[in-house]
Amino acid sequence: MAGSTFGTIFRITTWGESHGKGIGVIVDGCPAGIPLTEADIQPFNDRRRPNAGKMSTKRKEPDAVEILSGTFEGKTTGTPISMLIRNTDQHSTDYSNIMNIYRPGHADFGFDTKYGFRDYRGGGRSSGRETAGRVAGGAVAMQLLKQLGISFRTEVLIGGIPAENALELLDECRSKGDSVGSTVKCTVSGVPAGLGDPVFEKLDANLAKAVFSIGAVKAFEIGDGCSVSLSRGSENNDSFVPGENGPETVTNHAGGILGGFSSGSDLVLTAHFKPTPSISLPQQTVNREGKVEEIIIKGRHDPVIGPRAAVVVECMTALVLADALLLNMTATMDGIRRFYLS
Amino acid sequence: MAGSTFGTIFRITTWGESHGKGIGVIVDGCPAGIPLTEADIQPFNDRRRPNAGKMSTKRKEPDAVEILSGTFEGKTTGTPISMLIRNTDQHSTDYSNIMNIYRPGHADFGFDTKYGFRDYRGGGRSSGRETAGRVAGGAVAMQLLKQLGISFRTEVLIGGIPAENALELLDECRSKGDSVGSTVKCTVSGVPAGLGDPVFEKLDANLAKAVFSIGAVKAFEIGDGCSVSLSRGSENNDSFVPGENGPETVTNHAGGILGGFSSGSDLVLTAHFKPTPSISLPQQTVNREGKVEEIIIKGRHDPVIGPRAAVVVECMTALVLADALLLNMTATMDGIRRFYLS
Amino acid sequence: MAGSTFGTIFRITTWGESHGKGIGVIVDGCPAGIPLTEADIQPFNDRRRPNAGKMSTKRKEPDAVEILSGTFEGKTTGTPISMLIRNTDQHSTDYSNIMNIYRPGHADFGFDTKYGFRDYRGGGRSSGRETAGRVAGGAVAMQLLKQLGISFRTEVLIGGIPAENALELLDECRSKGDSVGSTVKCTVSGVPAGLGDPVFEKLDANLAKAVFSIGAVKAFEIGDGCSVSLSRGSENNDSFVPGENGPETVTNHAGGILGGFSSGSDLVLTAHFKPTPSISLPQQTVNREGKVEEIIIKGRHDPVIGPRAAVVVECMTALVLADALLLNMTATMDGIRRFYLS
Amino acid sequence: MAGSTFGTIFRITTWGESHGKGIGVIVDGCPAGIPLTEADIQPFNDRRRPNAGKMSTKRKEPDAVEILSGTFEGKTTGTPISMLIRNTDQHSTDYSNIMNIYRPGHADFGFDTKYGFRDYRGGGRSSGRETAGRVAGGAVAMQLLKQLGISFRTEVLIGGIPAENALELLDECRSKGDSVGSTVKCTVSGVPAGLGDPVFEKLDANLAKAVFSIGAVKAFEIGDGCSVSLSRGSENNDSFVPGENGPETVTNHAGGILGGFSSGSDLVLTAHFKPTPSISLPQQTVNREGKVEEIIIKGRHDPVIGPRAAVVVECMTALVLADALLLNMTATMDGIRRFYLS
Repeated sequence: MAGSTFGTIFRITTWGESHGKGIGVIVDGCPAGIPLTEADIQPFNDRRRPNAGKMSTKRKEPDAVEILSGTFEGKTTGTPISMLIRNTDQHSTDYSNIMNIYRPGHADFGFDTKYGFRDYRGGGRSSGRETAGRVAGGAVAMQLLKQLGISFRTEVLIGGIPAENALELLDECRSKGDSVGSTVKCTVSGVPAGLGDPVFEKLDANLAKAVFSIGAVKAFEIGDGCSVSLSRGSENNDSFVPGENGPETVTNHAGGILGGFSSGSDLVLTAHFKPTPSISLPQQTVNREGKVEEIIIKGRHDPVIGPRAAVVVECMTALVLADALLLNMTATMDGIRRFYLS
Repeated sequence: MAGSTFGTIFRITTWGESHGKGIGVIVDGCPAGIPLTEADIQPFNDRRRPNAGKMSTKRKEPDAVEILSGTFEGKTTGTPISMLIRNTDQHSTDYSNIMNIYRPGHADFGFDTKYGFRDYRGGGRSSGRETAGRVAGGAVAMQLLKQLGISFRTEVLIGGIPAENALELLDECRSKGDSVGSTVKCTVSGVPAGLGDPVFEKLDANLAKAVFSIGAVKAFEIGDGCSVSLSRGSENNDSFVPGENGPETVTNHAGGILGGFSSGSDLVLTAHFKPTPSISLPQQTVNREGKVEEIIIKGRHDPVIGPRAAVVVECMTALVLADALLLNMTATMDGIRRFYLS
Repeated sequence: MAGSTFGTIFRITTWGESHGKGIGVIVDGCPAGIPLTEADIQPFNDRRRPNAGKMSTKRKEPDAVEILSGTFEGKTTGTPISMLIRNTDQHSTDYSNIMNIYRPGHADFGFDTKYGFRDYRGGGRSSGRETAGRVAGGAVAMQLLKQLGISFRTEVLIGGIPAENALELLDECRSKGDSVGSTVKCTVSGVPAGLGDPVFEKLDANLAKAVFSIGAVKAFEIGDGCSVSLSRGSENNDSFVPGENGPETVTNHAGGILGGFSSGSDLVLTAHFKPTPSISLPQQTVNREGKVEEIIIKGRHDPVIGPRAAVVVECMTALVLADALLLNMTATMDGIRRFYLS
Repeated sequence: MAGSTFGTIFRITTWGESHGKGIGVIVDGCPAGIPLTEADIQPFNDRRRPNAGKMSTKRKEPDAVEILSGTFEGKTTGTPISMLIRNTDQHSTDYSNIMNIYRPGHADFGFDTKYGFRDYRGGGRSSGRETAGRVAGGAVAMQLLKQLGISFRTEVLIGGIPAENALELLDECRSKGDSVGSTVKCTVSGVPAGLGDPVFEKLDANLAKAVFSIGAVKAFEIGDGCSVSLSRGSENNDSFVPGENGPETVTNHAGGILGGFSSGSDLVLTAHFKPTPSISLPQQTVNREGKVEEIIIKGRHDPVIGPRAAVVVECMTALVLADALLLNMTATMDGIRRFYLS
């Protein structure tokens, strides 16, 4: 099944495994005339990239993004934008011990069951490294959104603690060989009202898919999220008031989405990530032959996923918004007449 | 934008508004040879249908499903299955007071912003009644799943209380003209391992979209859901043990999905619904001209969404699983050889 | 496989068999605000409908189109437009003799091979009657095109003779129990330049698929078509000259398409239809058990396909153009800025 | 619009311009377990590549294909296969004279109209060089088809003359600075019966789109093609006879497709290519400002398209067949039961 493509008009296709020759993405359907060079992309990939900080693995890859097509004289041309990130720091031998074993919390068993075998080197296609392609693609969407004044603000919690205060917790995890869960909350300002659709292509439905397609996400919330199930209608409804550019809401329990359409209020979405499944504590599992084995996962693994995944959440959100912005342009006969007859 | 279609191979397209001539669905891509008559569909639609019970509106529609095509001598033929549910109980006059007003918590404002105007009668396309088509379509998927021994179990909480114990809470809401939130938890047994995909078409990503496309859903969880963000890897990982038909997990924090693939354990998903936005308490809002108005929503409205939405959650889940089951058949050259050369 | 949907943004899904309860279509993604009533649709379906004339079968169906959803106060609302045409004139018994036999030139064998069995009544899903849904859907696209001043002109040849002069030939076919091939040439004026795409979604590629998806089409040509293979570049290239609204070509060998984009010249496309495969002359074939049988096909069958198919060619063309018009609106950042920021 | 992707399950996405850094393709949805190395791909790209022969340009590019992902130990893994062909032989300066001019017979005008500007170097995205990506992708499909015993045979006519006899004609074109049209006829043996679909996804409809998406194609025929419009039903119908593996036809007017399904007979398709539009004879045209200019196109251009396009026709055909083969595996409940329950 062709599962590596995301989006309808503004669309990305990613490829690559953690230990192959590289990772990449094709952005197709990007409008012509958007200023774009590698310098617009790289900062996003730098945020996703492992660094020497306390929160992430020591693996050091430059993750330099090369644009191979789709731009001309510093602008997008409307043709597919191919971007390549070479893999440079590979130690395949680190992974030989997991070749025939199903790591708990990982996709290994699923791969073998579906495909009959797998590229067992470092997670292969299921590696977090796959998201480097999404981020490069999402960075192009970000360029489009920036032109319309749309901006992002993201907060990360680690085990319930704001990321900047969680160093002690992370040290503890690292010293024990354990890991911890995390939360990424993303707020988007400047989204025009009316984006989305009333049925299957609700804006929140597409955001839910986009964010849930990031590895290790186990819950997704819009606005007040889970807590709405304990709320009353009289509390939860956001009253409309007149605003400068049309109706506004004072409260924002809805997180910026009503009936599948953006409301013009800030878009507020939250993703919950499970703890990194690769831990160095001993775990019981089975091997390909169905025999019980104990596994101790070596190698460099982040003890928490959220800090590096934050930019992936932003980028997947940007892709959904770019697509919705394009699709909405075709919604009325008046708009068509203006485009073709004036 | 064409937003009324869901699925890749096993695919439904719904149509209809609450106060038009009817509601319907086309199921396309359904395999040939599945036993199917209206008697297989109707029980699902009867669960979604309003009834005279304490939990739902007094509107009484038979919601009789008519199969118009795609079956022959009691079996599906592989051609599109068109199903029609006529609207019979319409009181358009009930809705005239909301014609020029944006109801808080509703899609009215989004519709007007995107399309320039709207069918203001009873929610139009955004009415909960649209889900009658999804349920009829999902019931066909259920017939397919039943042939493979896949079964569903669903629990509903109302304001945090099990639905069967929440009568007092509902009476309170009804007497106050208020509404309350709810939770639908769906457990699916018998799902084969390996369904899904490692990147954008993760099984959980498609389930997230499917469930979030149901009106009023504000959060979606798989397995332990939000609480994973507070958990440790050593707790959250489900150890594998040898099972009768391959590896199994004793615990199921993952809710039956690992790395985007089904694991063979029970699939566990939870949807959180906001309180019904239509309440009869007075609310402040603005009208189409941007003037402040007070609104009191009349008409027959359920004080809670979960009880009737439970079957919609099941049906959307069934549609995702049917599609994933079909797609997985094409995953290996060995499978192709067996199909064509033996 | 879900093969009953056509189009990306402006999209139709058809359903129905010749001898089921009816035929129908869902138009999804149609912009809001297009004037539309049944009176806009019916004339197209009347052209497709069998009539008592010399050229077509004597079967008389009113083919009355009923709009079930998606319009409000005489305009499209942006939600799916469902249309239903009830089957009224069925004589299933006419077809009992073909139940276990593979008719030469028909889909019977393909259906049995793919699906294991088939609805053998009158062609089932493969009946020409399926195109009633396409025509109703295409008529909606025609309403959109009409607003932009795009118009159609269609000529039909029967066995190489202009349709209006072919009565003698048809009488001969009818008296012999034979049938004859035909050609439909469609010229579309007023198509804006620049519609289409340079690679897989070339405007001509989508037209080719659209027209080849009509039963009995065996060849498709744009502009000079087959004869270009004998031409020289110096003859075939259409020189540009300055025109009132930009570059124009004096000649139109290209048939209005250059490199996958419309050129602004008339779009000229030609479809070649095989003779009706249902003939009453005796033919040799085999049955489901693989035994040789002689077959004489009874019933009312047109001796030629083109005259009734002409409107289907137009409607499929209209669907491709409507979709391309919508997609092109999203092609530039300048267009996006104009739409959202002004 | 995202127009660079082709296929539903077995799907390719191409990228690249003639004068950028390279050309490439992602094959997504390819089943796992197909033997695949660069040595399986290169021979196809070598056939497409310009060589020093009489029939093609003197531009010499090695067109070496590099597989970047999706294989492991010499087999496909089920994950996307990314392939890269670096551009090595670029003389951008050759093209500076066409920067502001619309070449007759080219996509230049369409590009400017749709996107507002274009990468004018050597055709950009519309260059024949884009097909290098399709061929690499099609070569993977060929590997799949080979496993099932499906084989191709292709004939080329140049100006109506078999390619091997057309040297004199080509010399004449070259010496005059002119070009000539061509025909590619492709016969595929071993295609199983029943592939395809009865409505929009007819096998021939998808082949028509696939082949018409190749630049310069102006007509497409299946079997007897255009000539069916002059034929009688009694001549055109192919009678069935009992065969070793089920019904067969003795004649094959239908070219191996009946009612949208493969019939098991040889698939016969013909594409007609216009003469190369780049000729060195002086031509009249207009520039971007709408002024008349004379243009003489320099550079290295083949005087005929068919010989190098033949492998592109084969590869696009292979892609359609691979996709149809996968889709057909999901057509019956019996097949699903066999796959999951045995």
